Amino acid sequence: MLSRRNPQLNRHGELIHLLSIEGLPREVLTHILDTAGSFMSVGERDVKKVPLLRGKSVFNLFFENSTRTRTTFEIAAKRLSADVINLDIARSSTAKGESLLDTIANLSAMQADMFVVRHGESGAPYLIAQHCAPHVHVINAGDGRHAHPTQALLDMYTIRHFKRDFSGLTVAVVGDIVHSRVARSDIHALTTLGVPEIRAVGPRTLVPADLREMGVRVVHDMDEGVADADVVIMLRLQNERMSGAMLPSAGEFFKRFGLTNAKLGLARPDAIVMHPGPINRGVEIASEVADGRASVILPQVTFGIAVRMAVMSIIAGNQA
Amino acid sequence: MLSRRNPQLNRHGELIHLLSIEGLPREVLTHILDTAGSFMSVGERDVKKVPLLRGKSVFNLFFENSTRTRTTFEIAAKRLSADVINLDIARSSTAKGESLLDTIANLSAMQADMFVVRHGESGAPYLIAQHCAPHVHVINAGDGRHAHPTQALLDMYTIRHFKRDFSGLTVAVVGDIVHSRVARSDIHALTTLGVPEIRAVGPRTLVPADLREMGVRVVHDMDEGVADADVVIMLRLQNERMSGAMLPSAGEFFKRFGLTNAKLGLARPDAIVMHPGPINRGVEIASEVADGRASVILPQVTFGIAVRMAVMSIIAGNQA
Amino acid sequence: MLSRRNPQLNRHGELIHLLSIEGLPREVLTHILDTAGSFMSVGERDVKKVPLLRGKSVFNLFFENSTRTRTTFEIAAKRLSADVINLDIARSSTAKGESLLDTIANLSAMQADMFVVRHGESGAPYLIAQHCAPHVHVINAGDGRHAHPTQALLDMYTIRHFKRDFSGLTVAVVGDIVHSRVARSDIHALTTLGVPEIRAVGPRTLVPADLREMGVRVVHDMDEGVADADVVIMLRLQNERMSGAMLPSAGEFFKRFGLTNAKLGLARPDAIVMHPGPINRGVEIASEVADGRASVILPQVTFGIAVRMAVMSIIAGNQA
Repeated sequence: MLSRRNPQLNRHGELIHLLSIEGLPREVLTHILDTAGSFMSVGERDVKKVPLLRGKSVFNLFFENSTRTRTTFEIAAKRLSADVINLDIARSSTAKGESLLDTIANLSAMQADMFVVRHGESGAPYLIAQHCAPHVHVINAGDGRHAHPTQALLDMYTIRHFKRDFSGLTVAVVGDIVHSRVARSDIHALTTLGVPEIRAVGPRTLVPADLREMGVRVVHDMDEGVADADVVIMLRLQNERMSGAMLPSAGEFFKRFGLTNAKLGLARPDAIVMHPGPINRGVEIASEVADGRASVILPQVTFGIAVRMAVMSIIAGNQA
Repeated sequence: MLSRRNPQLNRHGELIHLLSIEGLPREVLTHILDTAGSFMSVGERDVKKVPLLRGKSVFNLFFENSTRTRTTFEIAAKRLSADVINLDIARSSTAKGESLLDTIANLSAMQADMFVVRHGESGAPYLIAQHCAPHVHVINAGDGRHAHPTQALLDMYTIRHFKRDFSGLTVAVVGDIVHSRVARSDIHALTTLGVPEIRAVGPRTLVPADLREMGVRVVHDMDEGVADADVVIMLRLQNERMSGAMLPSAGEFFKRFGLTNAKLGLARPDAIVMHPGPINRGVEIASEVADGRASVILPQVTFGIAVRMAVMSIIAGNQA
Repeated sequence: MLSRRNPQLNRHGELIHLLSIEGLPREVLTHILDTAGSFMSVGERDVKKVPLLRGKSVFNLFFENSTRTRTTFEIAAKRLSADVINLDIARSSTAKGESLLDTIANLSAMQADMFVVRHGESGAPYLIAQHCAPHVHVINAGDGRHAHPTQALLDMYTIRHFKRDFSGLTVAVVGDIVHSRVARSDIHALTTLGVPEIRAVGPRTLVPADLREMGVRVVHDMDEGVADADVVIMLRLQNERMSGAMLPSAGEFFKRFGLTNAKLGLARPDAIVMHPGPINRGVEIASEVADGRASVILPQVTFGIAVRMAVMSIIAGNQA
């Protein structure tokens, strides 16, 4: 009997798609972070280009609009010298009633080399990876509430850059965890990389209780959540959640779980504050923190380009 | 007295614009297909680029939205190393009341080298070709119900690839022929390339009777239409037609003219099935056929890139 | 006490941003025009590219839609071999409530080299230039009613090309001056370059009286305005102005201030007619003039590419 292989890895255990952090061995994550490190210098060069993906066609397939994430992938691909094709999917064939798989089959037939996929439904990038031609590589740029693996990787790069080592850290992930693909991917990455204490901090309505099964400490009190933390990852509070029954109000949320300098004072003195952006000032994070000394939110963005270059160049070099 | 010259050809008979298949001599069509053949290998190379259009500016002018067709031209131009400028015409100067010819004059003044034009009105690419600067080449990417010459060329490439020779073939074009610029261009190309039997198959409301004057056999019965055919070209049924008086219903259309395995069994055993895409499964074509052994719908897409590269490189090399 | 330095210039007086013509010394303007002259030949070459900005990332940030202006910057940047990222700002993070400065900080962190900014509010490009990272250069592509410096520079290039010298000229700027950032920038440029007679011509409601303080002759009669002029710059009449109380009607405006061949006959015999485009035929300018011998409207477009290449290459070469 053949065991069901991880669709992200070829039979040599090499990365051919990046769909989820879940199921990736620590060596694969570490290899991506190491490779990203080598790309950091490219962004500081006068000519910010390397020819690794020259002549390759990278398609940005954003079924859900996200200018910022799309832009980071576009920059990463262009710095690798790839040709980038942005598809305005909402206006294209899918609007004419064509199925997702027919769209993918057609784009594969155009000799695409890579699909960067953002989709509102969890699992869509898996479906695409299973059905596209063997020469095509798929990167998940966020699917439903499921995963956002490149965000998790850039978060890990940031933590390693500032903390050097994962082995002794306490990391608090704070906010709307139940709806967050970033939180889910971060927790898998932190676990795989050996972070001993991972906390999920937020109100009962926004933190799933079953996280405990993953070894995560669930905390519903902010003071307890950030106490002695080395890293505080704040999540964006989606405005649309606040109108529902899940939250009393933005003001109330900020009072209980917003990160202020006072709350941050409970963390370790050298703690860093992260956020996937875009930030809601005064909702989940105070401006004094976002713009303060502990904030590494903008370095995260810079690292994100290098991490995406690393992922693209690694998967493009491996054969299905 | 000077005879009115074909605006697509210079005085040496060389192609300078591609506006319509009608009026192009067989040698010109064959030269495009031969050139496309030489580009097929580019798409399979590791670095999918040739420098033939380096430093040239190709403008995609899509007055009618078509992400798929625009994408194929964008890929073709980029594989030729051209700079591609996508103009969102619906939101641009024409929206401010600027006339088509003023827009074209302005874009010509930006030292454009090529316009790829999709327009809802028949003849718009001719108007543009007549009024743009002499250094600009125009490709018709579909105008009204008139013509879609690159689609016809990729269809011919596909037929030649699978059937080697046009001289003994029976080709059936099936469906909504009256509204189809693809059908019109295909029929001109098949005629020019010497296909002895061309059939236009569909209900009376969707097949123009005057096709007979072009030597086309008009058939209103599907069994008779596909009998012993070497090639079956299915056309997309536009949803908007079905609400009108022209068609009883999609279900009724499928029953009478949809291509099923049973119907396809009447064609020659080695018949191929083509479709310009995007397909309507269960409307004009059954999934069993679209995904079946006879279907060459996805190879059509691949050939389409090479054919568009061929057209672009040929016209860019000829002087008005 | 330190004097407040012009934010466009570094401490060596070199251009690092282009935000406004106001405050730029004549030598800076002349240097841009001279550099543009050297780029004119690039557009006529077979390979229309120079490697001056290779590996640089140019971001088009158009908070206000303008396909034409964005396209000219995109072409200019690509001819300099830069990577161009078009941001559809209306659909991006700003729509999610992110502040302008947070958006800019994020894009800077992606190691952008240049922002080309069009914004509906006067001063937005200044705000961006003040807050972006020191390695980023900002070009104002039009802000509110304030300035449109690259348009003014291409207008000056056009005048110098056809008239050789600014020192003896009479230049009439005609139309809706009060709402026009082009007029404002043109008047600053003409003044700096030493044009002895600058006229602002239009109805009382559309010409600000305080222009007289800038040495401009304010004229409310068209015959007097164009009499013996060497250069007539017609401004676009925004349709939205005509519905307001400021103007009786488009027809009435054309009768009083529209440029016809008869009116143009009052200017010098070798006068040239300019317009920033897109033109409103029969509103501010008659077709006989727009398409006539004196019109240099299309050469303006061609010069505009070279001028934008000049600005980009100059500022990219200077350090903050």
